[in-house]
Amino acid sequence: MYPKSVNNLIEAFKYFPGVGEKTAERMAFHVILNMDDIQRDFIANSIIQVKEKIKRCKCCNNISENDLCYICSDNLRNPDYLCIVEDPKSVISIEKQGIFNGYYHVLNGLISTLDGINPEDIRLDKLIERINQNNFKEIIIAVKPCLEGEMTALYINSVLSGMGLVISRLASGIPMGADMEYIDAITLEKAFDNRKKIS
Amino acid sequence: MYPKSVNNLIEAFKYFPGVGEKTAERMAFHVILNMDDIQRDFIANSIIQVKEKIKRCKCCNNISENDLCYICSDNLRNPDYLCIVEDPKSVISIEKQGIFNGYYHVLNGLISTLDGINPEDIRLDKLIERINQNNFKEIIIAVKPCLEGEMTALYINSVLSGMGLVISRLASGIPMGADMEYIDAITLEKAFDNRKKIS
Repeated sequence: MYPKSVNNLIEAFKYFPGVGEKTAERMAFHVILNMDDIQRDFIANSIIQVKEKIKRCKCCNNISENDLCYICSDNLRNPDYLCIVEDPKSVISIEKQGIFNGYYHVLNGLISTLDGINPEDIRLDKLIERINQNNFKEIIIAVKPCLEGEMTALYINSVLSGMGLVISRLASGIPMGADMEYIDAITLEKAFDNRKKIS
Repeated sequence: MYPKSVNNLIEAFKYFPGVGEKTAERMAFHVILNMDDIQRDFIANSIIQVKEKIKRCKCCNNISENDLCYICSDNLRNPDYLCIVEDPKSVISIEKQGIFNGYYHVLNGLISTLDGINPEDIRLDKLIERINQNNFKEIIIAVKPCLEGEMTALYINSVLSGMGLVISRLASGIPMGADMEYIDAITLEKAFDNRKKIS
């Protein structure tokens, strides 16, 4: 029913998460009917540029166009702190808030026995090498609090303990502004366990 | 915060309707972290292919890779009926249902004084030329029932009347399966006006 090139474009857009037949069709028609050639070229070229230019930072495994990402090349950051995150998206999330000024280390995902991601797959060798070559005082594990996150944090802790470092984990509890009645049981239990004395 | 190529990709994805900063970021990270080079190339190439190959059918103004679209090149269709639609998406919508076997004519949108689309912009000259060269018996106006659709239908009717053709308009009324309480006033009024005698 569609010309072949339109069919291909619809199939291509289905690679995106949450995009089914209808949305892919709408996107394809938008490209055909509403965009000009400059916009079409810009999208296609941007994808090709990202494919060709983006690699992993040799130091922290974050995404970067250079051998070292902009954070690892920044000498003004606090060299005492190393924050371990699960993926490059987490780096952006934390950086956007401007609350952390140390360095990052990006894992290759979280340990997940269900998905077949074993401890050796998250590549801690690079992390250990980096810790040995630097003088970090504290390692902050900032992976999300879920089964995989807990397993990963425990494993990292077991590997790094004995290296004379403070190892910490981001606090779990009730998010600011949340309604008590919508808090799930595990979060509430964590919030009770980690309660803080205020006077 | 992002490498330049990632920033460009995020900006590029914002060209799509309903895609804001957050969604564009998610799409860009999906391209970077979850797609392989074959998928990236397929998307980029599909956009370029569509840009280079898709043109308008010389006869009906539908999108096509050839001078004539697959409907206009089909001699087995019923040459008595010409269905006028507002855009190529409407052709697909009607074709998917398989309920119409005539030919189409795709307008350049609907007349809309608000958007500055005047009667001369929808290019009826091509339509009139086509009607003169063929032996259509009925022209079915299948533009959507809204202010712009009504204006366009009225204008087409005024231009084509006197050419000895039956001119019809798709029925307006309550859609099948709809709940009476959710029908808007204008649709309900149309349904009353166009009520059908059943015995």
